[in-house]
Amino acid sequence: MSARCKAAVIGGGVIGGGWAARFLLNGWDVAVFDPDPEAARKIGEVLANARRALPSLYDKALPPEGVLTLCATLAEAVAGADWVQESVPERLDIKHKTFAQIQDHAPEAAVIASSTSGFKPSQLQEGAARPAQIIVAHPFNPVYLLPLVEIVGSPASDPAMLQTACDHLTAMGMKPLVVRKEIDAHIADRMLEAVWREGLWLIKDGICTTEELDDCIRYGFGLRWAQMGLFETYRVAGGEAGMKHFMAQFGPALKWPWTKLMDVPEFTDELVDLIAGQSDAQSGHMSIRALEQLRDDNLVGIIRALKATGSGAGGTITEHEARLPDPDPGDLPVTGQRQVPQSWTDYNGHMNEANYLVAASQATDRFMEMIGCDAEYIAAGGSYFTVETHLRYLDEVVQGDSLRITTQVLRGEGKKLHLFHRLFRGDGTLSATVETFLLHVDLTTRKASTPAPGVVQAVQAFAADHAGMARPTGAGRAIT
Amino acid sequence: MSARCKAAVIGGGVIGGGWAARFLLNGWDVAVFDPDPEAARKIGEVLANARRALPSLYDKALPPEGVLTLCATLAEAVAGADWVQESVPERLDIKHKTFAQIQDHAPEAAVIASSTSGFKPSQLQEGAARPAQIIVAHPFNPVYLLPLVEIVGSPASDPAMLQTACDHLTAMGMKPLVVRKEIDAHIADRMLEAVWREGLWLIKDGICTTEELDDCIRYGFGLRWAQMGLFETYRVAGGEAGMKHFMAQFGPALKWPWTKLMDVPEFTDELVDLIAGQSDAQSGHMSIRALEQLRDDNLVGIIRALKATGSGAGGTITEHEARLPDPDPGDLPVTGQRQVPQSWTDYNGHMNEANYLVAASQATDRFMEMIGCDAEYIAAGGSYFTVETHLRYLDEVVQGDSLRITTQVLRGEGKKLHLFHRLFRGDGTLSATVETFLLHVDLTTRKASTPAPGVVQAVQAFAADHAGMARPTGAGRAIT
Repeated sequence: MSARCKAAVIGGGVIGGGWAARFLLNGWDVAVFDPDPEAARKIGEVLANARRALPSLYDKALPPEGVLTLCATLAEAVAGADWVQESVPERLDIKHKTFAQIQDHAPEAAVIASSTSGFKPSQLQEGAARPAQIIVAHPFNPVYLLPLVEIVGSPASDPAMLQTACDHLTAMGMKPLVVRKEIDAHIADRMLEAVWREGLWLIKDGICTTEELDDCIRYGFGLRWAQMGLFETYRVAGGEAGMKHFMAQFGPALKWPWTKLMDVPEFTDELVDLIAGQSDAQSGHMSIRALEQLRDDNLVGIIRALKATGSGAGGTITEHEARLPDPDPGDLPVTGQRQVPQSWTDYNGHMNEANYLVAASQATDRFMEMIGCDAEYIAAGGSYFTVETHLRYLDEVVQGDSLRITTQVLRGEGKKLHLFHRLFRGDGTLSATVETFLLHVDLTTRKASTPAPGVVQAVQAFAADHAGMARPTGAGRAIT
Repeated sequence: MSARCKAAVIGGGVIGGGWAARFLLNGWDVAVFDPDPEAARKIGEVLANARRALPSLYDKALPPEGVLTLCATLAEAVAGADWVQESVPERLDIKHKTFAQIQDHAPEAAVIASSTSGFKPSQLQEGAARPAQIIVAHPFNPVYLLPLVEIVGSPASDPAMLQTACDHLTAMGMKPLVVRKEIDAHIADRMLEAVWREGLWLIKDGICTTEELDDCIRYGFGLRWAQMGLFETYRVAGGEAGMKHFMAQFGPALKWPWTKLMDVPEFTDELVDLIAGQSDAQSGHMSIRALEQLRDDNLVGIIRALKATGSGAGGTITEHEARLPDPDPGDLPVTGQRQVPQSWTDYNGHMNEANYLVAASQATDRFMEMIGCDAEYIAAGGSYFTVETHLRYLDEVVQGDSLRITTQVLRGEGKKLHLFHRLFRGDGTLSATVETFLLHVDLTTRKASTPAPGVVQAVQAFAADHAGMARPTGAGRAIT
């Protein structure tokens, strides 16, 4: 993907705003068209949430933010766009009118994608000047955090266009999933509709309240689904005997008369009031803004937890992070550049003391890669173990601050590696120093050992380079 | 709950084994009856998984494990039990026979609970000597990690018995949810059945594979469900306009002909083979054991992430942790006692350097509570900020090791607090020391300030008490 792509976002509600944020925070310029006079405020609120949450997923900095423009006309918004995302109301006549206008003014090579949750691409393409250009790219709320995008084409669609769409989305850290055949509502919303129907019956029949139903999900199977979905969960449940055994054992339950799915509850005012009332009782004490931020903090926490094992959405972040550029080095190697996530802060309203060492430890890891002590080297049995570390906390760091870390080699000889990390806040303030002494070890014997020649040379080169620099303030300090 | 309760587990499969592990790791003695000659091995495997995962959720030690006994007869297993958990196959005739035997030998005050996912308690109670004693306690796999238990009674049930069951489960860190009216399959499995049906159609019709369907969940709405479930998610999606607006906007979609739920797919060999084959392609390269451990590591990570915000299952752990006893102090205050979670380890196969400081930071927090600098004090505007910290890494710590932390006050005068934490491994080895210097601050001005008189006195008392002790080896060290 070239730098400074342009996205046009047509319709700036929760979904359109989420798309705008996702593009902007990945360095795209974004032009929004929405006749709603409140559009600027609404997009601003989504963007504020996104700036708070998305960078918290990463242990590296995202690219510089693109430029947001609110346009007075659709024609202006789509002019020269690489991607046009339509998120107007779910009415086919409105969508058709919008696509006609888009195709009048957008480049013929642009991806034109609809956020529709219900319509098939062949329906959207009806009457279009260039049907092949129109696809479905159905995202999930909040679009700036959830990776999934259902990509759907019709028989008339251009496979190259679908591939371009997937490439763009992957480059922005999203997870495009190409749906094999177009159907109403694609895949995810089919499942959501099933649960929604069954849920409405359970509430209507007084079996549980909305809160109790939510508790059934979040204290139970929801915790499994965040990582492995439905079929993989059942594969594990089937045990060593496997999926076939599971299906033999549980499949027949399908025929049991449990469900009321065959029937649709009447959507009366009474049912609406019952559900809205229970929902108010459940969390009417929190504003939607507060609920959104809690949701986002939890999503960041869950996805970061999955990152540790590479599962699902966590793996997406790791892959995206590998694509992000390393920061430009100055006099000293820059071994970290990142934003401080909310989860790194504590009851004192600032970054917790331990997370200075988390950041510095990642900087040590990065420096180890720079000297050739990378994953492959470690797999072959050599690594460094930390023996002693000294931290000086010089200034507070709060959630959302950016952190830049430089690393100076104080000594690098044979097995010994003595590093001095400086942690700078975004405004240039030195917020902490972390001095650390490491020994190279043989991972089999767990004893100190001489590094491979390439590593020794790389360390010596850094040590020689840094030898002429002043010894940093605070190095060799003790607590007295 | 008194110490050393006894649970009888009748049926030692995945669910029964999970129950046994949950009881044992919470200090209950457990007697298992299962005629399967493989029962001991199977329970041993579940227990090994549980010992690896459950303590990792906590930043405190669980109580000493109870004693597991495999019994030759059901009568022996249930004798003197406080809780009898039935997890035999889902056939009503087998269940009835089992309950008759249980009621012949178990105390009349014991909770007799069934793990059934489908039957109503009134069905289970048919023909029983004491119907009121039998309830449903339906757990979720893995029982040792997922908090949810659906508690269901019939009109014949004794409300006091249901309350006793909830109290026992809460004391074990579980989340009992009392279902208001008995129905087939309770609540959660109604929703799972709906998704399962829709999912089978999507696979059968070639819209997606099992892996793609799982991806639709775990990269999308599954991440939301782990924290807030279905209705709360929609409340947030509805935005400021609220739940009523959401229902007005999306409710009518219910009438659209999206779903094929009204129809049940024929459960042919072809469909079974299709699904089993796709599932093999998805993760046939991993053993079930490896999948289980990955699942558990992810569950631990997700629940620990939710613990940071107190949401859902994370809140359950925090509440349970508050009930766990603090470790007995020796000469020095014990400020931490915990197991090392898998997520605390790194590519070197041992506890990552930063997590020594995470553990020590929690010990500092605990010490602050001991001197009266607790949540209430902090909310009133006083706290301690760390100025400098020195860590010495003396011996490796691996996943599953227990850690005990003691804290010595080297200096405690006015604003100044100089602490020396020792981190001991379960075998008594000193694995690290963490020396830390803190200043008391006014959280409004963010400047150093004198603590409240009660805190000053408490600090001085510790300092005087520790003044006669030898200055610890390594205190005041610098990296040279």
